[in-house]
Amino acid sequence: MNAQDLNKKKAAEFATKYIEAGMTVGLGTGSTVAFFLDALAEKNIEFTGVTTSNRTAARGAELGLKIVDVDEVDHIDVTVDGADQVDTYLNGIKGGGAALLMEKIVAKNSNKNIWIVDESKVKPTLGTFPLPVEVVPYGSGQLERKLAAKGLNPTFRMTDAGEKLVTDGGHYILDLHLNGIDSPELLSQFLSNEIGVVEHGLFLNTADTVIVGGDEIQVLDRQH
Amino acid sequence: MNAQDLNKKKAAEFATKYIEAGMTVGLGTGSTVAFFLDALAEKNIEFTGVTTSNRTAARGAELGLKIVDVDEVDHIDVTVDGADQVDTYLNGIKGGGAALLMEKIVAKNSNKNIWIVDESKVKPTLGTFPLPVEVVPYGSGQLERKLAAKGLNPTFRMTDAGEKLVTDGGHYILDLHLNGIDSPELLSQFLSNEIGVVEHGLFLNTADTVIVGGDEIQVLDRQH
Repeated sequence: MNAQDLNKKKAAEFATKYIEAGMTVGLGTGSTVAFFLDALAEKNIEFTGVTTSNRTAARGAELGLKIVDVDEVDHIDVTVDGADQVDTYLNGIKGGGAALLMEKIVAKNSNKNIWIVDESKVKPTLGTFPLPVEVVPYGSGQLERKLAAKGLNPTFRMTDAGEKLVTDGGHYILDLHLNGIDSPELLSQFLSNEIGVVEHGLFLNTADTVIVGGDEIQVLDRQH
Repeated sequence: MNAQDLNKKKAAEFATKYIEAGMTVGLGTGSTVAFFLDALAEKNIEFTGVTTSNRTAARGAELGLKIVDVDEVDHIDVTVDGADQVDTYLNGIKGGGAALLMEKIVAKNSNKNIWIVDESKVKPTLGTFPLPVEVVPYGSGQLERKLAAKGLNPTFRMTDAGEKLVTDGGHYILDLHLNGIDSPELLSQFLSNEIGVVEHGLFLNTADTVIVGGDEIQVLDRQH
């Protein structure tokens, strides 16, 4: 296992301490969450998992975990998810795995959100990682041209087969290639108001705790 | 033909005056637009139609009209669409026909928007017609509960077969049963920011001209 994966695994295993028997737990998507699912299955406690992607639902079922949809629970105690980039205010970019829409829906419905990342994900400023924007296919070409005209450098996320990637929700992803985001709140508001944008990968004021895997584990808590 | 249909037909036929040969024309959805498509086919001029629904695309093809997607054109000269309710500021509620998402995308990409309505649609205040909100299926039950807790009286739009209606974009519709909307801008902003809301049926600052069919035709132009 390379050093980065080892750091992901460390953060993932640490996060299982937050999970108690009987909880309803949101389960994120991605390579760090994959380590978390393994560690949680080993912990062998009863809990109800709420999925954020078809992928996580399938992996959870393989591990014998109880996995349900967000509409089947009346609350979520805690959600554990990865992030592609986190700043020092605990804001993040998510959606490298194309699951940002369901991840945001589950996060929004959670009493507490914990992100698990390796130390390479923590940056002073967001935006060097491409910002994914989930868009309605109809008119997405017009939207791409509009975002390009604003200097946001959008590109459609493609599959290995060279087709536009289709998300679990049936949408496309436009990745914005930015050189840092000065004002995440303004960009978030702009994107939310654009017709055809379903959701975007800026997760602001969402994470309560970020667990950073490195030589030592760092736990960053939101200042309320 | 009943009086209301006659008024729809009058408005629809009047709107063909705005269409010239060679134009790219957005074609709305609904019963009033159906009269417009018939009248436009009779006018027998060359134009390119941009569709707002699978239904309009199919009807246009039957009539022998040239119909393309919004991404296939570099601009839209004028879009003609219906509305479920229009106020005196030319703001409207659309989406009774469940096509609000594609209608809004086409409207947003149009140089000019004309709405055609019968006189029963014009009201001093919006909101007695249910306001459609197009939502991501995943988590839509949680969103319904949240909107209900805010007093917005949401109900899922159902098919005759008793299933939740699925839009052309693969989403559900929540209809908000309100007793008038005091602040369309605030409600629009609130709904746009809700996670899981793809788009809503408030069309603010969109229509440039509203053609109202009644005993006489009334033409309302936006005050710029």
